[in-house]
Amino acid sequence: MTLDDLPTPCLVLDRTILRRNIAGMATALARHGVPLRPHMKTAKSIDVARLALTGQGGITVSTLAEAEYFAAHGITDILYAVGITPAKLDQVALLNADGADIAIITDDPDMAGIIGAHPRPPRSLIEIDTGEARAGLLPDDPMLPALAARLGPAFAGLLTHAGHSYAGRSAEEMARIAEAERAGIVAAAERLRAAGHAVPIVSMGSSPTARAAADLAGITEIRAGVYMFGDLFQAGIGTHEIDDIAVTVLASVIGRREGQILVDAGGLALSKDRSTEAGPRDWGFGLVLDRDGRRAYGDTIVRRAYQEHGVILLDPDHPIPLRVGERVRIAPNHTCMTAAAHDRYYVIDDGGAEVVAVWPRVNGW
Amino acid sequence: MTLDDLPTPCLVLDRTILRRNIAGMATALARHGVPLRPHMKTAKSIDVARLALTGQGGITVSTLAEAEYFAAHGITDILYAVGITPAKLDQVALLNADGADIAIITDDPDMAGIIGAHPRPPRSLIEIDTGEARAGLLPDDPMLPALAARLGPAFAGLLTHAGHSYAGRSAEEMARIAEAERAGIVAAAERLRAAGHAVPIVSMGSSPTARAAADLAGITEIRAGVYMFGDLFQAGIGTHEIDDIAVTVLASVIGRREGQILVDAGGLALSKDRSTEAGPRDWGFGLVLDRDGRRAYGDTIVRRAYQEHGVILLDPDHPIPLRVGERVRIAPNHTCMTAAAHDRYYVIDDGGAEVVAVWPRVNGW
Repeated sequence: MTLDDLPTPCLVLDRTILRRNIAGMATALARHGVPLRPHMKTAKSIDVARLALTGQGGITVSTLAEAEYFAAHGITDILYAVGITPAKLDQVALLNADGADIAIITDDPDMAGIIGAHPRPPRSLIEIDTGEARAGLLPDDPMLPALAARLGPAFAGLLTHAGHSYAGRSAEEMARIAEAERAGIVAAAERLRAAGHAVPIVSMGSSPTARAAADLAGITEIRAGVYMFGDLFQAGIGTHEIDDIAVTVLASVIGRREGQILVDAGGLALSKDRSTEAGPRDWGFGLVLDRDGRRAYGDTIVRRAYQEHGVILLDPDHPIPLRVGERVRIAPNHTCMTAAAHDRYYVIDDGGAEVVAVWPRVNGW
Repeated sequence: MTLDDLPTPCLVLDRTILRRNIAGMATALARHGVPLRPHMKTAKSIDVARLALTGQGGITVSTLAEAEYFAAHGITDILYAVGITPAKLDQVALLNADGADIAIITDDPDMAGIIGAHPRPPRSLIEIDTGEARAGLLPDDPMLPALAARLGPAFAGLLTHAGHSYAGRSAEEMARIAEAERAGIVAAAERLRAAGHAVPIVSMGSSPTARAAADLAGITEIRAGVYMFGDLFQAGIGTHEIDDIAVTVLASVIGRREGQILVDAGGLALSKDRSTEAGPRDWGFGLVLDRDGRRAYGDTIVRRAYQEHGVILLDPDHPIPLRVGERVRIAPNHTCMTAAAHDRYYVIDDGGAEVVAVWPRVNGW
C-alpha cells in the first residue's frame, strides 16, 4: 500500500521525523537528568507512546479515554493533567482498582476535600499557576497548605504548565518563561515542605519550556507532547523547523479553476485552528507540500476551509500542476487539533510513499 | 439516565427543537412544492435522517463514509455533493453495485471524461457556480455543453450551492442571493436543454437560501442541512433564533477563580471555529447556558479554548454559582464543526434532563 492507495483526507505520520523529534527532546533534557513524562494528548496512540517512552516511566494524558486506553495497553503510570471532578474521581478510582495508577490534579478546596474523603483516593497533585492564568493556585496563595492538608495522604506533589510559553517568540524568551515556571513551582513546593508536607512530585512543562529550560533544579519531571509531531505554529515560534513536522494531511485535488485548487481536506480534516494568525507568519489553514512531503510549492497555503473543501490559492511562481485525484500533503497549523479529526495514522518512513504501518488513535472522551 | 450521569464533555440534542426546526423548513418550502433533499453533513445520524425525511426522497452527504453508512441503513437515494475523484468514483460504483444509488458531482473536464468512460457510471451532476466562487462552472461557461457531452448517459443534471448566503445579514439579502442562485442554475439548465441535453435534476440550496427563497421556478430539489440544529452563527445572520439551537455541549466545571470558570469543554469539544467573529456579535467559542439549556447567565461566553479547557469569563451581573463537577451547556458557534468531535448524541425532549435515547454519528471519511 502506498500514499496513492489511501482514502483522502487522511493523516500521514513520518516515523523518521517522529523519532528525530523524540531524540531531540531527549538530548535537550539529558543535560538536566530530569525524566520526561511525555504528554500523549497530541499523539493519542500506543504505538507513538512506545517510541516516546525512551526509558522507564509514565505518561501524561488529557482525557480519561486516553487514560483507560493506555492502561489497557500496559502503561499504568499515568498523570491525568486536567482538573478532576467528583464523577471523574470515581472513574479514576475504578481504573486504579483495576490495575492502573492514575494520578490526578486539582486546585479547588471543595474538590480537595472530596478527594481526601474518598475511600481509595488516587495520588493527587495541586496545580500551580506560574503565569498562564488558566488554572492553579499562585505559588504564594495562602490556601496552598490547607489544600494539601485536605488531600491528606493522597497529596503527592505539585504540577504546573507554562502554556503562555506559546506566546514566546525566541529561545531566550522561552528560557525566561521556563525559569519562571521552575522557580514558581519550586517556591510552592518549598512553602509546603516548610509546612511539613512531603512533596515528592514537582512536575512542570510545555514543549517550548522543556526544550529551552537552562536549569531544572528542584523539578522531578518534565511534561511535553506536541514536540513529537511539531506544527506550523511551533515552527513559527522557533521551537523547531518546518521540516520537523511529522504529521501531515494527505488530500486529493477535487477541482481546479483560475488561480486556485480545491482539495478534499477542509475544516474538519485540517481543523479550524488559526493559531498562526497571531504568529510571525499566517499559514492560513496549512502549508501545501507535495505528495512526498517536500516543499515543492513555495509558501502556498490553504487559504479558506469549508467543512469538506479546502481552497488553495495558487502562487504564480509555484504552480501546482496536478489533476483531479492527484495528491498533496498539508502541514497543519496546530497538530493537536488537526489529528483529533482522524482515527488513525498512516505511517511512512523517511519521506517514502510506502505505508509501513497503520496506527489507531484514541479520540473523544 | 439524566444529564447529570453523562460523561463530559458530550453532545446533547434536544429532539423537540430538532422536530420544530424540521417542521419550520418544511413549512418554508411547502409553498414552493419543491422537495427537500436534506443534507446530512451536520447530523451524520440515521436517527436524525429519519426525522428529516418527512416524506419520500433522498438525502445529501458530504463524505463517502456518510454515503456508505446511510446506504447500509436503507437510505439509498444519495447525492454526494463534493467534487468526485477517480478513486472515489470507483468507491461509489462499488457501493452502487451493492444496492445504493449515489449520484456524484464534478466541474472538471478530465473527470467528466473519466466518468463517461466508466463501465458503470453513477448519475452525475455538473456543479454550477452561482456566486460562491468555490467550485463549479459559471452558468455561461462555454465548456458547459462539452462537459455534459463527455458525461454522456451519466449526465443527470446540475447542482449549485450559494454558500455565500452565509455572508448575508437579513432575510432580504438572503432572498436576493436565493434568486441569483435559482436564476443562475436555471439559465445553465436552459443552455443545456437548448443544446439537446435532458436536465432532469436542477438542485440548489443552503439553509439560508432554502428558507428565504421567494421563487423556486425551474428547481427540482432543495438542499439544506444546518437548519436542523442551528447554531450561533446562523442565529447571528437571522436564519433562526438562539432558542432554536438544538445541539449543545454539556460540560463540567473543573475550576474556579476570580472572574472566571474553567470547564472541560475546550477546543476539541467545541471546535476552534470562530465563525461569529466576523458576524454581528462575537460569541467567542460558545454561549453558556445552564444545565437545562436555559439562558440563565446572560451573554456569558467561552472566551478562550485550549485543547481540553474552556475559559468562561464571568459577567458580574450574571454570576454562575456552580461548584466543580456541576454542569453547563454551551451553544456552539458552528454546529457542523462542533458535532464532528463527538461520536454520539445524548437525546433529550423539550429541555428535560432525562436522556431518552443515544444516537450514534458517522464521523471521518
